[in-house]
Amino acid sequence: MDFQEYFPIWSKLSVTQQNTLSAALMTKTIAKGTMIHNGSMDCTGLLLVRSGQLRAYILSDEGREITIYRLFDRDMCLFSASCMMRSIQFDVTIEAEKDTELWVIPSEVYQNMMSESAPVANYTNELMATRFSDVMWLMEQIMWKSLDKRVAAFLLEEASIEGSDRLKITHESIANHLGSHREVITRMLRYFQNEGMVKLSRSVVEITDTAKLEELTEQ
Amino acid sequence: MDFQEYFPIWSKLSVTQQNTLSAALMTKTIAKGTMIHNGSMDCTGLLLVRSGQLRAYILSDEGREITIYRLFDRDMCLFSASCMMRSIQFDVTIEAEKDTELWVIPSEVYQNMMSESAPVANYTNELMATRFSDVMWLMEQIMWKSLDKRVAAFLLEEASIEGSDRLKITHESIANHLGSHREVITRMLRYFQNEGMVKLSRSVVEITDTAKLEELTEQ
Repeated sequence: MDFQEYFPIWSKLSVTQQNTLSAALMTKTIAKGTMIHNGSMDCTGLLLVRSGQLRAYILSDEGREITIYRLFDRDMCLFSASCMMRSIQFDVTIEAEKDTELWVIPSEVYQNMMSESAPVANYTNELMATRFSDVMWLMEQIMWKSLDKRVAAFLLEEASIEGSDRLKITHESIANHLGSHREVITRMLRYFQNEGMVKLSRSVVEITDTAKLEELTEQ
Repeated sequence: MDFQEYFPIWSKLSVTQQNTLSAALMTKTIAKGTMIHNGSMDCTGLLLVRSGQLRAYILSDEGREITIYRLFDRDMCLFSASCMMRSIQFDVTIEAEKDTELWVIPSEVYQNMMSESAPVANYTNELMATRFSDVMWLMEQIMWKSLDKRVAAFLLEEASIEGSDRLKITHESIANHLGSHREVITRMLRYFQNEGMVKLSRSVVEITDTAKLEELTEQ
């Protein structure tokens, strides 16, 4: 089982803990677009991504969304197991952005390990601090950066994740990542097109001037 | 020493850890308005508030502020010791909002305890999750709530902290709590005054209709 290679503190577990974890572990294959976890579900467990891509986002009462972080190969998702810690008083929704293979660690198994093992508890601390840092970065973007810079940064990030300047993405989806409205994003993208930075066609945004977009984000 | 009564996991420390901690502990009295920690300072250590009030906020390049949480009696401040964890990739500024007595736990002493003790590491996890929840709440407010609701909620919270409806606070200071501009807050408070919810005088905002303010926040 190659879980051991993906779980960074495997060697710090006792043999008993390793056996308990191996026996409790589940593997899952999740199709792109599937919602894996939300606040109204039971505690889903910790998710360790073997391959694929997950998106964690929050949702307003009116159905608006904003992406708070994404998870890639080898990333661990803690907040799908938020029942483990009573101080986690918020809900995130997690969906597969690509076909994803992952391991699920049941919450109670992980919680038991964490309560008796300082290495597991400290690893969990580092995981939480990483996500906390993501959210603080996002907060600074929302507070101090104008939307044109945020859209430009988002397109560049997408191009980097996809390894392509031709992005298959709707204006609605960009709005949902950034906590904005479709109409606002459409207006912004048309402005970018007029400036020669992108070329728009049905459900495609093609970056035509990466340098100019980068310059915009740095202003 | 009454530190033991303020530090919730004292009884879970070994005698050696208790002795090390007692020897390393410092007490400080901080005058209202003093900045205790910011990103450019060395790691200040963990702060445990005995009495008083601290404010943690972030700062933009242009000097705009937004309060991310406050600390009261018995609260512990983790992010003044962010050097302890390499995954904490953000800076907060911490200042005393009232005259404050606190204990400082040196970062390296706490870090040593945390690395060897599951109870200390798990306590730290709960602390971080509490602050994370504060920030997620704030993010939802910023994203989905209009400024009139946020100003109303802020005034009600201040009145509750101070135990008085007569708040000695400048428009500038309210703007700094909420990540807004003074002019915008002044306009909003004048609107509130016209609606009979507050009465404004020099550096004072007096709440004159609590029920109406509460109603506004609930809409």
